[in-house]
Amino acid sequence: MFTPLHPESPSLETGDKGKIKIKPSRRPRHLVRVPLQKTFVTGRGVTGFTIVYKNKNSAARLGKIITAHGEIDTPCFMPVGTQGTVKALSPEELKDCGAQIILSNAYHLFLRPGMEVIKKAGGLHNFISWPGPILTDSGGYQVFSLALLRKVSDEGVQFQSHIDGMKHFLLPEDVIRIQKELDSDIIMPLDECVHYPCSKDYATVAMKRTLDWAKRSKVVTSHQSPVTSQNRQLLFGIVQGATYEDLRKECAERLVEIGVDGYAIGGVSVGEPKNLRYNIVNFSLGFLPQDKPRYLMGLGMPQDIIEAVELGVDMFDCVIPTRYGRNGTAFTSEGKLTIRNAPYTEDFNPLDAKCSCYTCQSFSRAYLRHLFNTDEILGLRLVSLHNVHFYLELMRKIREAIRQDKFIEFKKRFLSNYSNADFRKSNAD
Amino acid sequence: MFTPLHPESPSLETGDKGKIKIKPSRRPRHLVRVPLQKTFVTGRGVTGFTIVYKNKNSAARLGKIITAHGEIDTPCFMPVGTQGTVKALSPEELKDCGAQIILSNAYHLFLRPGMEVIKKAGGLHNFISWPGPILTDSGGYQVFSLALLRKVSDEGVQFQSHIDGMKHFLLPEDVIRIQKELDSDIIMPLDECVHYPCSKDYATVAMKRTLDWAKRSKVVTSHQSPVTSQNRQLLFGIVQGATYEDLRKECAERLVEIGVDGYAIGGVSVGEPKNLRYNIVNFSLGFLPQDKPRYLMGLGMPQDIIEAVELGVDMFDCVIPTRYGRNGTAFTSEGKLTIRNAPYTEDFNPLDAKCSCYTCQSFSRAYLRHLFNTDEILGLRLVSLHNVHFYLELMRKIREAIRQDKFIEFKKRFLSNYSNADFRKSNAD
Repeated sequence: MFTPLHPESPSLETGDKGKIKIKPSRRPRHLVRVPLQKTFVTGRGVTGFTIVYKNKNSAARLGKIITAHGEIDTPCFMPVGTQGTVKALSPEELKDCGAQIILSNAYHLFLRPGMEVIKKAGGLHNFISWPGPILTDSGGYQVFSLALLRKVSDEGVQFQSHIDGMKHFLLPEDVIRIQKELDSDIIMPLDECVHYPCSKDYATVAMKRTLDWAKRSKVVTSHQSPVTSQNRQLLFGIVQGATYEDLRKECAERLVEIGVDGYAIGGVSVGEPKNLRYNIVNFSLGFLPQDKPRYLMGLGMPQDIIEAVELGVDMFDCVIPTRYGRNGTAFTSEGKLTIRNAPYTEDFNPLDAKCSCYTCQSFSRAYLRHLFNTDEILGLRLVSLHNVHFYLELMRKIREAIRQDKFIEFKKRFLSNYSNADFRKSNAD
Repeated sequence: MFTPLHPESPSLETGDKGKIKIKPSRRPRHLVRVPLQKTFVTGRGVTGFTIVYKNKNSAARLGKIITAHGEIDTPCFMPVGTQGTVKALSPEELKDCGAQIILSNAYHLFLRPGMEVIKKAGGLHNFISWPGPILTDSGGYQVFSLALLRKVSDEGVQFQSHIDGMKHFLLPEDVIRIQKELDSDIIMPLDECVHYPCSKDYATVAMKRTLDWAKRSKVVTSHQSPVTSQNRQLLFGIVQGATYEDLRKECAERLVEIGVDGYAIGGVSVGEPKNLRYNIVNFSLGFLPQDKPRYLMGLGMPQDIIEAVELGVDMFDCVIPTRYGRNGTAFTSEGKLTIRNAPYTEDFNPLDAKCSCYTCQSFSRAYLRHLFNTDEILGLRLVSLHNVHFYLELMRKIREAIRQDKFIEFKKRFLSNYSNADFRKSNAD
């Protein structure tokens, strides 16, 4: 879709990094002026992952994922745009917040608007006007949590759409084909995600099925055409196995044998206690190769992200910043803040005095509270924007701390400020 | 609130127009970086109205309203921000669309967040982060349409809040004081707006009351302190009289005797047939002074605005662009377009190929339709933004046509394109 410029191209002279360019012939003619098109650093090299720096005092590391639509600095947070839009925010705002990649969902897009529309639009990037990298989740989790009357077999999943009740049957191969048509940069195979608690017998079945589907997915992607080192989609694998260490170990080891471009830890944050989750993540990471990105799916709160980075996780996604934003809960350097609360009625400070986002630079807590009290859409827009900015800024600070070998100090300082008792008392969840 | 810069100030050298500057002492300290603060041309001269050019072939004219917070080119359209926000849009976006003034509502702001909050914020401009001109409607219309158990007497209005049922009694003097505290640039007196049809007896009572209240409002504003020619709020009067020509004439003539800074025609678009409305507007204008701005309240559709400009109206406000935007109806140079309609499923054109707004430059009809079908907030944001841009662009084109003595040609061309039968057939209201 987007062709990397040759390094000698004049437009590269403005900086030391390549820019992406939209191939006019593939883009609907009217959309010639896309403000974002020049803002993503192209993957000029081979798509894949490079470790840039390893922190001396922890397993945290700096990395770079190179995709056909741009590069991503890790550890990274991917704002979630399930239906092809990060809720309430524009692509321009995401870029301004520093987003380098967003996540979307193959299951949702397959149902609406459907693959024909996106194919005719020239792929998902064109359709949603986000020219940067996109990771698409397969929708395995959504099939299991949203779809009606689902029937899972080793062959694939049969389900009824949660929107119109229409019946669908998808093989893992279909799910890869869908993501190929979406033209996502990082694709996830279909997996079976179980809830907590789950019997060991069923967790074993789901884990083995997940592995088998990963293998079948890899076969399909290996036949992708045209495949060049420049535009290859990255296929990740997903470690399942519920809360059973032996299952997690088996799944991780066999995924490594299959060999994928990155390793996701799935089936966490599905109802299990936090310490159990921590142990499972830590345990699973031990069986994953150092030279591939590790992606902890669906997490989480700022403190969860920091803890997982310390264990060596590189990628995160979560609906929390936008979902909390729509409900009027803001993340700040001192903790969470519920904007509807009475103490903010005449509080003319910004959400976070340390924040440089548009919301904090322009509006007071009192005004934001007024917007929420009067059900004005601008309120949820502004708090969502702030929250996404907060998460992306957190990742920038994390990367900076790793680079300076000060991650542990950063973690201590962040958590100490973030847990500020007074602030949290009045803003309890 | 905002102090006009001295003409010799260095920051004026970038252009031929003065800029406004926010007086730091009155602004909450954190809000030092307001991206909009330098974008409004200050009213360096005496607040008021100047006719810039009179069209040769119609009553249409170009004018300039000078307020303490900036200048407004007329004919102008004021996006409506009833509760202190133009629904779904940010101040930054309004500025980008070319808005020079917005309208807000004293009744709504008095109830929520209440005057204490806005006073402590340093006025409405600071509270909502819109440093440009603001006209506040008194809320007379809202008292009569929204409030519960209202009781109108010559003294004032008693009503129960439509939000919490709390009882309030407001004199016309209170309504002016509220708008003084809001620090609005143009203030409207309390009036009694009647619906169509209305008996002549009641229309007479309401008209006389409106006149009496205007007189009392002028007395209060005349005692404003400090009053200088630079920061004086402009007080408008409202012509009522339902559909009775003699009542309209009497109201207009007596308002002129009272003497106000601008003349609004109220009580239109309250259920009367379109031709009756046209006649009443045209008739009322005949009794208003040429050298003051004329404001047609609450109208309307693009074609209504063009017709009224031809009659000599200078100012408009209407919720239509944002309300229709939230419902997925877009205004285009070819007419209205209902984005949810099936023909747009695979339509990768912008809403309007002739439009330069962010929505049209970045997104296709197919994507916007997808956003509405999936109830995504970005959809109503983008169509609201486009519609406000469309209205403001229409006003720019109207002003340009007046300047070139080509208003009649412009009107014919616009209406001929706008009425395009094929387009409208599939997008009927």
